[in-house]
Amino acid sequence: MADVIDIDDPADPRLDDFRDLNSSDRRPDLPDGKGLVIAEGVLVVQRMLASRFEPISLLGVDRRLGELADDLAGVEVPFYRTSAEVMAEVVGFHLNRGVLAAAHRPPALDLDDVLNGARTVAVLEGVNDHENIGSMFRNAAGLGVDAVLFGDRCADPMYRRAVRVSMGHVLRVPFARVPEWPYGLQRLQDKGFQLISLTPNPSAVTLAEAMTGEKVALLLGAEGPGLSEHTMRRTDVRARIPMAPGTDSLNVATAAAMAFYERVRLAG
Amino acid sequence: MADVIDIDDPADPRLDDFRDLNSSDRRPDLPDGKGLVIAEGVLVVQRMLASRFEPISLLGVDRRLGELADDLAGVEVPFYRTSAEVMAEVVGFHLNRGVLAAAHRPPALDLDDVLNGARTVAVLEGVNDHENIGSMFRNAAGLGVDAVLFGDRCADPMYRRAVRVSMGHVLRVPFARVPEWPYGLQRLQDKGFQLISLTPNPSAVTLAEAMTGEKVALLLGAEGPGLSEHTMRRTDVRARIPMAPGTDSLNVATAAAMAFYERVRLAG
Repeated sequence: MADVIDIDDPADPRLDDFRDLNSSDRRPDLPDGKGLVIAEGVLVVQRMLASRFEPISLLGVDRRLGELADDLAGVEVPFYRTSAEVMAEVVGFHLNRGVLAAAHRPPALDLDDVLNGARTVAVLEGVNDHENIGSMFRNAAGLGVDAVLFGDRCADPMYRRAVRVSMGHVLRVPFARVPEWPYGLQRLQDKGFQLISLTPNPSAVTLAEAMTGEKVALLLGAEGPGLSEHTMRRTDVRARIPMAPGTDSLNVATAAAMAFYERVRLAG
Repeated sequence: MADVIDIDDPADPRLDDFRDLNSSDRRPDLPDGKGLVIAEGVLVVQRMLASRFEPISLLGVDRRLGELADDLAGVEVPFYRTSAEVMAEVVGFHLNRGVLAAAHRPPALDLDDVLNGARTVAVLEGVNDHENIGSMFRNAAGLGVDAVLFGDRCADPMYRRAVRVSMGHVLRVPFARVPEWPYGLQRLQDKGFQLISLTPNPSAVTLAEAMTGEKVALLLGAEGPGLSEHTMRRTDVRARIPMAPGTDSLNVATAAAMAFYERVRLAG
């Protein structure tokens, strides 16, 4: 069971891993700072406890400690128990989920390890919005996508907001960086993945027509710019996301979900 | 051209239609209060100007006035020109889009009028999150869904956040209330719509199998509870959203997007 420690003083330095969560230059989950990963709320904390992200401490109110009792059995880390008011003062805003866990960033996964056994992966380029990254992981988990791979210019998937929007699936769905972007895509091809660029271009083939590989990598760019031409040239096929004429592109996580859905549908 | 009026005083009562936008009990777009509809940003204001929602006034910085010059030709309403600082003081927070438009709520559309000519409609029950409502409208516009219909317990689609998340498509995609929910669904059946309940239940048929009607109504409930059984009983078929075992349900707007996608795909 976690070691329960009552704390009343918001200035207590033992709470520093949870301090100023909304601060753009001091937050503890800045990759160049403390580099922690923060889970919020009972469900996401449970997912962290069951993941390769091992918490170093928790902060929460008594009620949440009770709800997590089973999950914390055998977990030897401090649970700092306090009031909602002290929590708000520490993190810098009112946090209605009542519990947080902090973990160190685990070593990055190796691309080859992530690809072994995978049949469907998403590959992102320039997706620089944390909420879109989070949604993408949630959709990946919900639709059986095996991994998420990152090319250049993507937002940090381990930022608290991405973790929260993903419902904790950032902690579960494996992810890795594709080195030497976009040339490193060759490593996916070497492993037998069909590389499919998603584009709103109406001259591209449909998703259903494009998706012929036994193993499939779905490449997605940010809303607006989309994938770079340089990257698209390195893929096997360009597939279009259906869209009504005269509308904007769909949200990138929504476009991804449709491609994930098509993959599930075709796999029967 | 709009009548440009310079205002320096944030207390000027002519700006009251834009005051305290984040206030839960005073905001001007409360349906039981002033009942205004607020558009934010150049793109959404342009969509409002081209819609049945006629602005009564605009508030913005000079640069946005310039960007909207063509759209405002022939529009006889005041444009209150001011600084970003005064705008922030009026609305109650820093608004980085630099322009707002306020419109009265137009009369509700008649259900029969909305259904005439429509081939695909979404029908919502208990979707009480403004961002999900907004996303749903964006996805409806992007994937050629003709209308959004509301059953019981849904959030107000005309709230500023829903309008913003929809990228202004709340102002364009027709919507109407289904009266006497859920019995009023009969009116859709009378017009030849096949009613399809979306459910995570694995014993339901697939979306592709379910979607056989020439006219289709896709019924969606909130994440978590989903559609009520009472409502599902009144539909023609239950279709499942594919999901990996052991994951939560997908976001309701994402589930809707997959159904809209399937409709586009089957229609070829």
